[in-house]
Amino acid sequence: MSTKEMLVDGKGKKIYSTEDPEIVLVHYTDVASAYGGIKTASIKDKGKCNNAISAFAFEAMTAAGIPNHFISLENEREQLCRKVTMIPLQIIVRNRLAGTTAAMLGLKNGAEISNTVFELRYNCRSLGNPMINEHHAVALGIVTYEEVGEILDLAKRTNEVLKDTFHKAGIELVDFKMECGKDAEGHIIIADEISPDNCRLWDEKSGEILDKDRFRHDMSDVCISYRTIMERLSKSVKL
Amino acid sequence: MSTKEMLVDGKGKKIYSTEDPEIVLVHYTDVASAYGGIKTASIKDKGKCNNAISAFAFEAMTAAGIPNHFISLENEREQLCRKVTMIPLQIIVRNRLAGTTAAMLGLKNGAEISNTVFELRYNCRSLGNPMINEHHAVALGIVTYEEVGEILDLAKRTNEVLKDTFHKAGIELVDFKMECGKDAEGHIIIADEISPDNCRLWDEKSGEILDKDRFRHDMSDVCISYRTIMERLSKSVKL
Repeated sequence: MSTKEMLVDGKGKKIYSTEDPEIVLVHYTDVASAYGGIKTASIKDKGKCNNAISAFAFEAMTAAGIPNHFISLENEREQLCRKVTMIPLQIIVRNRLAGTTAAMLGLKNGAEISNTVFELRYNCRSLGNPMINEHHAVALGIVTYEEVGEILDLAKRTNEVLKDTFHKAGIELVDFKMECGKDAEGHIIIADEISPDNCRLWDEKSGEILDKDRFRHDMSDVCISYRTIMERLSKSVKL
Repeated sequence: MSTKEMLVDGKGKKIYSTEDPEIVLVHYTDVASAYGGIKTASIKDKGKCNNAISAFAFEAMTAAGIPNHFISLENEREQLCRKVTMIPLQIIVRNRLAGTTAAMLGLKNGAEISNTVFELRYNCRSLGNPMINEHHAVALGIVTYEEVGEILDLAKRTNEVLKDTFHKAGIELVDFKMECGKDAEGHIIIADEISPDNCRLWDEKSGEILDKDRFRHDMSDVCISYRTIMERLSKSVKL
């Protein structure tokens, strides 16, 4: 499908309009970015891995009846998605507590928990994407209580599907971030990406970190671990 | 009632055991403290005002059937309360967005909102009392989902009662913090204090700040504004 204009000029993703006003083309780059853009680098073939991994994830969600923006893979670095108006919320789902959240609560990185933790962040870079709750989101006029309830229900269902998808590839889904948008009819669907850039993914047996934390913490072989995830998923998932 | 040993040696409040193991005596001091104890001062008669204002608030809650720890005023600076095991959560209820929350969301101080905002903070000074949500609270083992639901319901009812109580005194309840504990039977009841030290209270007509923000922001006449609240409540509330 031929593209028209660039709609979003992100570091890790460029989004283009297409001849169909309801379809966009998402192009995954090799640029990695952390700490709000303070640390950046190019990681060979990251874009290819994330394009494929995100497609695996969204296909699994579609199979489970979870509405999302993915239409089809276009090529190694690109996928066609439904155009949405993004809701400025990040929904973070945690099966263990890791990273800044573990530190905030005085727990060790990767602490096991008896429940699933759902967090909301206000997607506003100038404010540092602060953690908020559903009342703040409603007060900001971002969503209604009904909509945020629907989003959290989608997050819960997505977590079950993705845990299972990664588990079949021998990978533990420690946490992930998702974002939603509204399609042309106003329905809430899951958009953005599901990849090692916004998931914590650990090898189930060794506990080895396979995700963007390798880049954040200056660990080696980021591109190898992303490729490992892609290859393991391609073996375990039947598209 | 004669006291035995000091149980809590706080800046603004000292708590003593009494001859009855289920009753404590709360002594309100004149010490003011802000920014996690970085700024402290003595404010003449603050303890007397907070003792009386807290009693007015808890009496109004009792009249509305909201379980709380208050038993009776003992003297100008002291009140008898039921002994509880505190739950390490702060529940903050906001009828407008002010202070750090307004700044966090990019809104002006005192921004009007169409809903009521409820926030939880993990009462852990060494971690800076971080804002959390109900999932973090359950993950930490502080409460069950059922208990946090009960606490938020108590907060909602308390807000309605306190808004009305202060409104009758010509004062707007902008926000307040409450804490809960479990009594000897394991029932959740509201404890701690309700005073200008943990409420934002504005004059309904002039918008004048009457609460601890006067101390935080180096405004004059802190003791006069606390006394104003006490006197207005004593005229409008029939104990």
